[in-house]
Amino acid sequence: MSEHDADVVVVGAGLAGLTAARDIEAQGRSVVVLEARDRVGGRTLNHPIAGTEHVVEIGGQWVGPTQDRMIALARELGVTTYPTYGAGDNLVDWDGRHIRYRGSIPKINAAVLLDVGQAQARLERLAKKVDPQAPWAAAKAREWDSITFDTWIRRNTVTKGAATLLEIAIQAVWAAEPADVSLLHVLFYTASAGSFEKLIGTEGGAQQDRFHGGSQLVSLRLAERLRGPIVLEAPVRRIEQDDAGVRVSADGHVVSARAVIVALPPTLTARIDWSPAMPAQRDQLIQRTAQGTVAKCMAVYDTPFWRAEGLSGQALSVQGPTRVMFDNSPPDGSRGVLLGFLEGRAARDMGEWEPEARRRAVVDGFARVFGPRAGQPIEYIEQRWADEIYTRGCYGCYLPPGAWTAHGQWLRRPIGRVIWAGSEYATVWSGYMDGAVRSGEQAALDVAPLL
Amino acid sequence: MSEHDADVVVVGAGLAGLTAARDIEAQGRSVVVLEARDRVGGRTLNHPIAGTEHVVEIGGQWVGPTQDRMIALARELGVTTYPTYGAGDNLVDWDGRHIRYRGSIPKINAAVLLDVGQAQARLERLAKKVDPQAPWAAAKAREWDSITFDTWIRRNTVTKGAATLLEIAIQAVWAAEPADVSLLHVLFYTASAGSFEKLIGTEGGAQQDRFHGGSQLVSLRLAERLRGPIVLEAPVRRIEQDDAGVRVSADGHVVSARAVIVALPPTLTARIDWSPAMPAQRDQLIQRTAQGTVAKCMAVYDTPFWRAEGLSGQALSVQGPTRVMFDNSPPDGSRGVLLGFLEGRAARDMGEWEPEARRRAVVDGFARVFGPRAGQPIEYIEQRWADEIYTRGCYGCYLPPGAWTAHGQWLRRPIGRVIWAGSEYATVWSGYMDGAVRSGEQAALDVAPLL
Repeated sequence: MSEHDADVVVVGAGLAGLTAARDIEAQGRSVVVLEARDRVGGRTLNHPIAGTEHVVEIGGQWVGPTQDRMIALARELGVTTYPTYGAGDNLVDWDGRHIRYRGSIPKINAAVLLDVGQAQARLERLAKKVDPQAPWAAAKAREWDSITFDTWIRRNTVTKGAATLLEIAIQAVWAAEPADVSLLHVLFYTASAGSFEKLIGTEGGAQQDRFHGGSQLVSLRLAERLRGPIVLEAPVRRIEQDDAGVRVSADGHVVSARAVIVALPPTLTARIDWSPAMPAQRDQLIQRTAQGTVAKCMAVYDTPFWRAEGLSGQALSVQGPTRVMFDNSPPDGSRGVLLGFLEGRAARDMGEWEPEARRRAVVDGFARVFGPRAGQPIEYIEQRWADEIYTRGCYGCYLPPGAWTAHGQWLRRPIGRVIWAGSEYATVWSGYMDGAVRSGEQAALDVAPLL
Repeated sequence: MSEHDADVVVVGAGLAGLTAARDIEAQGRSVVVLEARDRVGGRTLNHPIAGTEHVVEIGGQWVGPTQDRMIALARELGVTTYPTYGAGDNLVDWDGRHIRYRGSIPKINAAVLLDVGQAQARLERLAKKVDPQAPWAAAKAREWDSITFDTWIRRNTVTKGAATLLEIAIQAVWAAEPADVSLLHVLFYTASAGSFEKLIGTEGGAQQDRFHGGSQLVSLRLAERLRGPIVLEAPVRRIEQDDAGVRVSADGHVVSARAVIVALPPTLTARIDWSPAMPAQRDQLIQRTAQGTVAKCMAVYDTPFWRAEGLSGQALSVQGPTRVMFDNSPPDGSRGVLLGFLEGRAARDMGEWEPEARRRAVVDGFARVFGPRAGQPIEYIEQRWADEIYTRGCYGCYLPPGAWTAHGQWLRRPIGRVIWAGSEYATVWSGYMDGAVRSGEQAALDVAPLL
C-alpha cells in the first residue's frame, strides 16, 4: 500500500479532473490524481487508423462555437483544430428515398419542414425560460418535469416526419430515447448549450471542428504538464472525510489531503464507499441519473470516395441502424472514414449481438446510404462505452421525469470536503468536453476555501 | 480475514435472502449468509413502544389476501396475524373539510367519485393486459412506457379531486410521485398484486392484517432455524465468479461457494465490484432503478382515543404532510399509535429538515385530522429508509419511463453463477414482503442446477 499526501486529491484523470488539477497547481497547491484506468483522458480516447500516422477518436471528438474553455485549453496546449468535413451535399435516407440537402435540416417535404421548424422554434423559446444553473426554479419546472420528451413531441408535431426527425435528434444528442428524458432535462441541456440548433449543428454547432492529433491529446498534454503524480490503475474504493481532511483509498494507494475532487460520471460516485455516508438526497439523485447508450462505429476505406460524388459524408437515415453519419477521415484525406452512431435503443439492442453481426449491420447501413463501396471497408472500429466499467455509458447522464425538480439541487452541491467535477456538473455545455473543462475550472475555485 | 466455504453464499439477510437460505438447506446444501447490518430482517424492523412489551414496525408491516407465501411462512414459524384496526369511520381531510366515510374511497362528491371510479376501472383493465413476468412484451408496452403516470392521470380524469386521489394513491403505493413512474411500471406492479384495489385496500387488500410480535419476527425466527452461519456486519465489497464457483469478499470475511444469491435492493447491486464486470445492459438497467422515498412516522398516546369517537384511525389528508394515516396501536389497545407516511416529494423535502421541525409538522397534521389530543403524543417514532446505507430507499424500486422496455429483460436474468433475489424481482406482489418471500423461494430453485 503506497501512501501519498497532497493538498487535494483528484479522482479521475479525464478532462475535468486534469483541468482541476492544473488549476489547483497554479494556485500553488499540491495534487495527487488517482485514475482507475491505465491511461488518462476519460471519455476521450484516440485510436490509430491501421497503417497510418493518424488517429480517430472513439470517444468525444468535436468542438464548436462558444465552447470557449475547451478551445482555449487546447490552444494553450498547442492542440489545433480543423473543420469537420462538410463540402458537398448531405444525404437523407428517408423511407428508401435518398435526398441530397445542405445544412442541418433535410429537405423531406414542405409539411414536415414546417412542422419540425415550428416545434424546434417552440423548444428554443421554452429553453430560454430555464436557467441551467437552477432548472428546478423555472416557473413551469414541475409541469415540464412531469412529462417525457416523447409526450412533448406528440403534442407539438402533426406530421410523422417531424416526430421522426426530433426522435433522431434526441438519440443523437442524448444517446437515449425521447421516452427516457424529461422535457425539463431537454430544456436544461439546450439552455446549457445556448440553443437546440447548436446541439445538433455541424457548421456553427457542436460538431463544427475536430482536433489535429485527436481530442485525447488535450488530456495527454495536460497530464505531461502536471507536477504532481497521476497514479494509474488505482480505482478508488473508499473516501473518508472529517473536519480536517479526507482519506481516499484506491487499490494499492491511500491519499490523505485537505479535500477531494471527484471527477467521475455521477452514477459511478454511488459505487464508492463513503464515510460518513452520502446524504439521502444526493444518493437518491444518483439512483436517478442514467448514462446514455452509444456505440461509436467507424469504417475505414482507402479513400473518402463519396467526396468525388459531391457528398459531404454527413447523412441521416431513418432505417439506420446508425441514423446519423459523418465523414471522419483524417485531415489530409489519406484514408476515408465513415462514422455512424448506434444510439439509445439501437445501441442497447445491438449491444447484445455478436460483434461480427453488429459490424455487418452497421456497414450494410453505410452501403445503403453511400453505395456498395461503403460495404467493403479495410478496417472497422467500434467502441461501446456502456461496457467500460469506469464509464458505464455515454455521452453523459440524463435525468428522467421527476428527478430535476425533486433532487436537482443536490447535483452540484459539495458534501463537506468533497467537490464534484465532470461534464454532467457543468452549467454551460453540460455533457460536452467544454463542460468538462468548465466543471474542472469551477471545482478548482470551489476547493480553494477548503485548503 | 475469516474464510468460509459453502455450496451457496447468500448476500443479504432480509426476507428474500433468509427464505432462499432456508430452502437451500432444505435441499441438503450448505449456506453462508452475509449481512451488512448488525441484524437480520432488511426492510422489516421492529421497534419497542416505550414502557410496554409491544413493538411497532418501522419497516414493512402488513399482509393481505393472496399474499400466500408470506402468510404460509409466518404460520410455519408460529407468527400469527390480527386485523388492522378498522372499526368505525375513516376520515378525509379535504380542503379543510373533515368527512367521515367507510371503505377505500372517501365520499368527497359524486363527480369526483364517478371520475376516480372510471379511472381506476380503466387502470384495472389495462393492468390485465400486462404479464408481470414480461411487462415489455405487452402489445402496447412501448406506448405505456413512453408516458409518466402523471400524463396518464391528466388524460384520464376530468376533476381535480380525482387527480388528487390518484396522486395520493401513487404516493402511498410507490413512495414516489406520479411524474416519477412510467405507466407501464404502474401496470406491471398492479398486475403483480392482482389489482389496484388490492394495492390500496385495507380490508381485502395489502393493508388488511398485522403480525403479532411485529413482522421482523418472521426473519428473526427464520434466522434462528438456519443451520449455516449468518455473518453480521459483513458488507459485501467484491464478487468474483468463474466456471467453477464464486468468491464473495466482505469486510473481514471471504466466502467461496458454487453460486451466490444476491438479495439486495437492485440499486445496491451496482455498488459491488464485480469480476467479471456486469454486462452493460444489466448495469444500465440498475442505473435506471430508483428506490422510493418514505418516512414512516408514528405518534404514541396513552390510549387510542379516536376509537371512542367512532373513528377507525384511518385517514386521508390532502394537506398532509402525512397524507395517509392508520391506527397502528398494539393489538390490546394498551397504547394508541397513529401512523402516517411522508411519501415521495414530502419525504424528500422534509428529509432535509431538522428532526424536531419534522416531528412538529407530522404531529400537527395528526392533530388537524384527529383533534388536539393527537398533538400531544407521549412518544414519536420515525424511520427514513433513504438514510440507511444498506437500503437507500423504500418501499421498493420503481422504473421511470423507457426503462422496462429497454432493459427490463435483464432484471431477473441470472449472470452466470449470480442469482438475484429481493422483493423487486418478484412477479407476484413485487415490492411487498410476500414478493420477497417468493423471490427467495424462486432463487433457491434457480440456484439448484448450479450446484
